[in-house]
Amino acid sequence: MTKRTETDLIITGGIVLTMDEPEVIEPGAVVVNDGDIVFVGTAPDAAELFIAPTVIDTVDCVVIPGLVNGHTHAAMSLLRGIADDLPLEEWLQDYIFPAEARNLDEDLVYWGTKLACAEMLLGGITTFCDMYLFEDSAARAARDMGMRGVMGEVLYDFDSPNYGTIEKGFEYTETFIQTWKDDPLITPSVQPHALDTCSPELLVRAKEIADSHKVPLIVHVAETKSNREYIKEKHSASSFVYLDKLGVLGENFVADHAVWVDDEEMDIMADRGVSIVTNPESNMKLSSGWAPIHSYLQRGITVGLGTDGAASNNNLDMMGEMDTLAKLHKVYDTDPTHLGAKTVMGLATRDGARALGLGEITGSLTVGKKADIAILDFNKPHLTPMYDPFSHIVYAALASDVRDVVVGGVPRVRGRRLVNTDIDQIMANAKQLAGHVRSSLK
Amino acid sequence: MTKRTETDLIITGGIVLTMDEPEVIEPGAVVVNDGDIVFVGTAPDAAELFIAPTVIDTVDCVVIPGLVNGHTHAAMSLLRGIADDLPLEEWLQDYIFPAEARNLDEDLVYWGTKLACAEMLLGGITTFCDMYLFEDSAARAARDMGMRGVMGEVLYDFDSPNYGTIEKGFEYTETFIQTWKDDPLITPSVQPHALDTCSPELLVRAKEIADSHKVPLIVHVAETKSNREYIKEKHSASSFVYLDKLGVLGENFVADHAVWVDDEEMDIMADRGVSIVTNPESNMKLSSGWAPIHSYLQRGITVGLGTDGAASNNNLDMMGEMDTLAKLHKVYDTDPTHLGAKTVMGLATRDGARALGLGEITGSLTVGKKADIAILDFNKPHLTPMYDPFSHIVYAALASDVRDVVVGGVPRVRGRRLVNTDIDQIMANAKQLAGHVRSSLK
Repeated sequence: MTKRTETDLIITGGIVLTMDEPEVIEPGAVVVNDGDIVFVGTAPDAAELFIAPTVIDTVDCVVIPGLVNGHTHAAMSLLRGIADDLPLEEWLQDYIFPAEARNLDEDLVYWGTKLACAEMLLGGITTFCDMYLFEDSAARAARDMGMRGVMGEVLYDFDSPNYGTIEKGFEYTETFIQTWKDDPLITPSVQPHALDTCSPELLVRAKEIADSHKVPLIVHVAETKSNREYIKEKHSASSFVYLDKLGVLGENFVADHAVWVDDEEMDIMADRGVSIVTNPESNMKLSSGWAPIHSYLQRGITVGLGTDGAASNNNLDMMGEMDTLAKLHKVYDTDPTHLGAKTVMGLATRDGARALGLGEITGSLTVGKKADIAILDFNKPHLTPMYDPFSHIVYAALASDVRDVVVGGVPRVRGRRLVNTDIDQIMANAKQLAGHVRSSLK
Repeated sequence: MTKRTETDLIITGGIVLTMDEPEVIEPGAVVVNDGDIVFVGTAPDAAELFIAPTVIDTVDCVVIPGLVNGHTHAAMSLLRGIADDLPLEEWLQDYIFPAEARNLDEDLVYWGTKLACAEMLLGGITTFCDMYLFEDSAARAARDMGMRGVMGEVLYDFDSPNYGTIEKGFEYTETFIQTWKDDPLITPSVQPHALDTCSPELLVRAKEIADSHKVPLIVHVAETKSNREYIKEKHSASSFVYLDKLGVLGENFVADHAVWVDDEEMDIMADRGVSIVTNPESNMKLSSGWAPIHSYLQRGITVGLGTDGAASNNNLDMMGEMDTLAKLHKVYDTDPTHLGAKTVMGLATRDGARALGLGEITGSLTVGKKADIAILDFNKPHLTPMYDPFSHIVYAALASDVRDVVVGGVPRVRGRRLVNTDIDQIMANAKQLAGHVRSSLK
């Protein structure tokens, strides 16, 4: 017998869905060394070639790339359920904005983001894209929880409770990028809020900063019909025509939502290499509408999937989000062949990573990528029998079916429990902070 | 201290959502004796008044009425994921019908229903309404699993693999009703399949049988646009106008789906006291459409919520179904105030029970009703902090947050595990049967 190569971690025995070629390996194995995937193949081949101090047995399990939550406001986990079933303006003006204005600080964002990371890791999410305030605290929380994050301080024309004036906001963003640009888990980004809250000058300046540092430029675009109409009225152009005239579109541009667009805009998006991240549950709950995902995909536009913040979803559950995405578009397109299970799983992994500029880093089980992996336990009544693993993952499985999660080669969830994390302390702090939020609204 | 009354079971310490008055009791208690709820009130009052050999501590939990799955085909759990993302006719004709024709028998229905009951109980469902073939086997499975069921053999014009000709189908139904009418858990019913598969004579005869035994008459009505158009063409009337002319509508009539209806039909439904059961996830996945639930509720029509079968959902998860129901109608009605959390929870409990004729038996935590209870563990990252228990249940909680379930006073789930149930055997049998199904389609 030839000498086997020593590695850090072997995950072996179950069905491996690579989201690359070959698609399905059964029984399959993924071998990890120094944080990277060094082998993807059959279980017998892995046993012959590799040895490791840690072996995760995945018999009766399905091994997938860690899920990519393409858009959220993580610390809003502390505002989940504070107000629901209200008109958007009342929800924002009477609850969310006052709760934020009176309570947001580094401490709340740090603990709120940690709480969100706990939920996301337990649900198989290894990468998230975050837009919020006090983002340096959010990035520290993500790093401390061992999650991969594309993080950006939200920028807008009015004063921010964090940085003050927008000039200070640009300074904060520059410092934030310098601080995090070499971090193994955190990718800094530039995140202007939206087209109605950011001047043309702000958007152009944001684009310059993003380009100079080669980081993503991420903006809420055309989330609601009224938002689209406001831009049309103010700038005599549809949202993406306006953005194109400003010269801010490009391959690092990520449009969150992009619900209300026309064919001309989709053509522009495809031409410029813009990506979008769709958030169907939040768009439904706030009655915002639904994005034309099938048309985006037909044009070759890269589409990621996100949960949006927990205050408008109300969870950070990408398993549920995949299910809803598929069903929503089947019923609105009146075509059950649209958004099939494999396509949807692609949006939640490979394509989501690509949308965020992490296509070479994560999103598939591919040799050379970081070892970001989720393992689902299929030995459950609702997943038995199993004819098609893609169908089960999108339409039947729950976030709670995730048994183990590895980020950059480090196990972060084992047996449905967070590794080396005091979840009781995180929840206790969350409850205490929520007490202050509740009092502040009385 | 006065002598405390001896009872069977005390559930105490958590938040109790009664779905009756008062709505919320915290800390609350529910006391059970001889299968019935004998007390609903505060935890301190319960401690003063009652004693029991079993006490379930619900600190950090929310106690709700057991969920009512208003429409399913339970044994289709064995066909989950066998085909998805296909046009409806191809899905039915090339996969579901052949799989059923070649495999259905008493054994498959018994084990498939047991598997479905396992999933439903673990997700907090205590009552389900089932339409399938070999329904006597389904009823035995439900009884053996300790679930409450409204069960009916599906009737149609063509021959059935179970009973043969429709005349034999009526005989089967009469016998079925006689067999089960005094069972403490099973309510027999008469279930003609749909308006395009059942002749007017069949529907009228079914109505006579249902009325003579005072049991529900349950029919798929107007599930798809093409179904509606077929009826219009054939009978020169909309679905409910046609049914009304036949004289089959009444307070025991339950219409499953009722997606494609007009105002005149809704007025008739309200006048006749017809109930409906909506199945949003199945309607979305099959691109069938969405039912006008807000309009039904405005007219005072009783609405229940169901999952439909696992082959078109693909799970039997009422927690997820509540979430989707609320969001689908908010976006469809472009009004975020529609289908609020409390309303939706009513559909999944109290109203669903009422729709099935079990309004006096189950669906709320009310003294005198059967003790059908689900306990959700809220000590989880995705349910912390908690501002509003209704919001959390509908928008954030998962089926896997159900910790304990009691049906008719008998604990059926404790600590997320089925009590006195060999789930491994059920799953092993399911896998074996699925092997036959798979082979039969090759």
